[in-house]
Amino acid sequence: MKKFVDDPTQFVHDMEEGLYLANKDSLKWVPEYNIIYRADLPKDKVLIMQGSGSGHEPAHIMAVGPGMLDAACPGAVFAAPPMDFVLECTRLLKNPHGVLHIINNYQGDRMAWDMAKEMAEAEDPDLKIGVIIVNDDVAVEDSLYTTGRRGVAGNFFVMKAVGAASEQGKSLEELVALGEKVNGWTRSMGVALTSCTPPAKGTPIFEIGDDEIEVGVGIHGEPGRRRDKIRPASEIVDELFEAIRSDLPFESGDRVAVMVNGLGGTPISELYLLYGLVAKKCEAAGLTIAKNYVGNYCTSLEMQGFSLTLSKLDDEIEGYLDAPASIPIRVF
Amino acid sequence: MKKFVDDPTQFVHDMEEGLYLANKDSLKWVPEYNIIYRADLPKDKVLIMQGSGSGHEPAHIMAVGPGMLDAACPGAVFAAPPMDFVLECTRLLKNPHGVLHIINNYQGDRMAWDMAKEMAEAEDPDLKIGVIIVNDDVAVEDSLYTTGRRGVAGNFFVMKAVGAASEQGKSLEELVALGEKVNGWTRSMGVALTSCTPPAKGTPIFEIGDDEIEVGVGIHGEPGRRRDKIRPASEIVDELFEAIRSDLPFESGDRVAVMVNGLGGTPISELYLLYGLVAKKCEAAGLTIAKNYVGNYCTSLEMQGFSLTLSKLDDEIEGYLDAPASIPIRVF
Repeated sequence: MKKFVDDPTQFVHDMEEGLYLANKDSLKWVPEYNIIYRADLPKDKVLIMQGSGSGHEPAHIMAVGPGMLDAACPGAVFAAPPMDFVLECTRLLKNPHGVLHIINNYQGDRMAWDMAKEMAEAEDPDLKIGVIIVNDDVAVEDSLYTTGRRGVAGNFFVMKAVGAASEQGKSLEELVALGEKVNGWTRSMGVALTSCTPPAKGTPIFEIGDDEIEVGVGIHGEPGRRRDKIRPASEIVDELFEAIRSDLPFESGDRVAVMVNGLGGTPISELYLLYGLVAKKCEAAGLTIAKNYVGNYCTSLEMQGFSLTLSKLDDEIEGYLDAPASIPIRVF
Repeated sequence: MKKFVDDPTQFVHDMEEGLYLANKDSLKWVPEYNIIYRADLPKDKVLIMQGSGSGHEPAHIMAVGPGMLDAACPGAVFAAPPMDFVLECTRLLKNPHGVLHIINNYQGDRMAWDMAKEMAEAEDPDLKIGVIIVNDDVAVEDSLYTTGRRGVAGNFFVMKAVGAASEQGKSLEELVALGEKVNGWTRSMGVALTSCTPPAKGTPIFEIGDDEIEVGVGIHGEPGRRRDKIRPASEIVDELFEAIRSDLPFESGDRVAVMVNGLGGTPISELYLLYGLVAKKCEAAGLTIAKNYVGNYCTSLEMQGFSLTLSKLDDEIEGYLDAPASIPIRVF
């Protein structure tokens, strides 16, 4: 295993420490529970948290800041946060306006968050907790760690919309309805060229041949629709686009946000090349791209691959995507 | 070769097309000369351009926008732009305030830019062209493609400072002096875990063992100081930090900007882990980190590795780093 790491068992701690040291003015850190939260935690709005496993950075600890998440409490690499992480983070955010849990749909996450919600409500019967389940991945129904569909990069559209709406004073009920609307209009699918190696495991999460790709891969290396031979980028885009388009379905005249999300090890040159192909597919299908996002959002460590996400827009959602947000990852 | 590409010989064209389609409101594209430039090209200031090879994205085509570059004209992957690309781009930016050429120090680049400058000046004796040579890499003196030191990620500090200063109406002479000051105070060094494969070449640019790293690697895979075995991240940071610190030298009490730059295939989790180690080294050395940048800036396609850059600050430079800039790569 070749990685930039000291003690592999301390990988998440050491990464979070670096994130915290890089953002001491804007973030706070509770190492015992892997919690990263806003230093300027507001008192006048619903507070929003997300968990998930580590290894998907920038999701979700690098999406904490005004206009996005108020806190994140990830588990170990590719593992749901333990129940007590979620409970402790919920306690930290406790406030009269309520706490919103955003959960990617995996069995381990669902169980930990359900239990933590029950315990937090038992501790304080006045506490309101809302829940949004994200399940945007069209590749497969049911999967290695999932009943139903998996939650992947489309999650960023949910976080951004409800994050912006919360800053504008929307109620917990309004945020849950908004998040469910965005999730309902969002579809994703990914493809992997390579595997990846969790530091504490030390070996790849799956094997893949030098000329093979995994079409419909999950963000923890879960099998997709099939193993295929490497093909030209435009053929891969054709397949992903059609699987996504036909699923909602997106229809001629729709306005959409498009995300070409790198899985961690794909150069941004290839991601922009892919975006160009997607833009042409959208034009041919009569879809107007109102917003585009090209880069690494929800990754699988150093995996080479990408996922495509389309999210249908209306004026309300587009307004929230345009609203300001300020999170640790930045360009210059 | 497993990459997201259609025709490998059209890789740069197809990537630029995607970048252009993603930014049609803010960028223009001249495919014949690989030129990406601002759609709102100002008429009231010095205009700034950079070339370099492709394969280093986001450098430099994704650094075009208000407050950074006004245009970029890269060559093929890891190749200097041909003289006529530089000449055509210079013609496009021709204006009474002058044109600033920022050049990373490689022999091929120096030759192409020198010739283009001579030809542009011969065409129009009134045209003022300023030149800044960037050579921030402390790893080696002279190299595979370089006499003197190589220009690497520290280039972003030069671009950002002169970009901001140009927006504030500084003269060509003032910008050259500023760029030389920033370059003179900037030091970088990199390390590679893996090689990378230019699409049109189809094979890796160098071979490296499963347990080996290249300490002091160049951004085109040029040899560094030595081949070593993989070591803990903190030992690698110790070596890079000390090579950089002692070179200027940076001294206790200095204010610095720190960049932990991914070489393309390194997950951002590892980059933040590295940043945490660098922050501790800076604190121990009495250096105050006023600004930090963690992410992919100057890459080598899908190479796994990183470079560390320290840039000494004064109030003037810090002000320019804080000034607004708007370039295609964005977070959310």
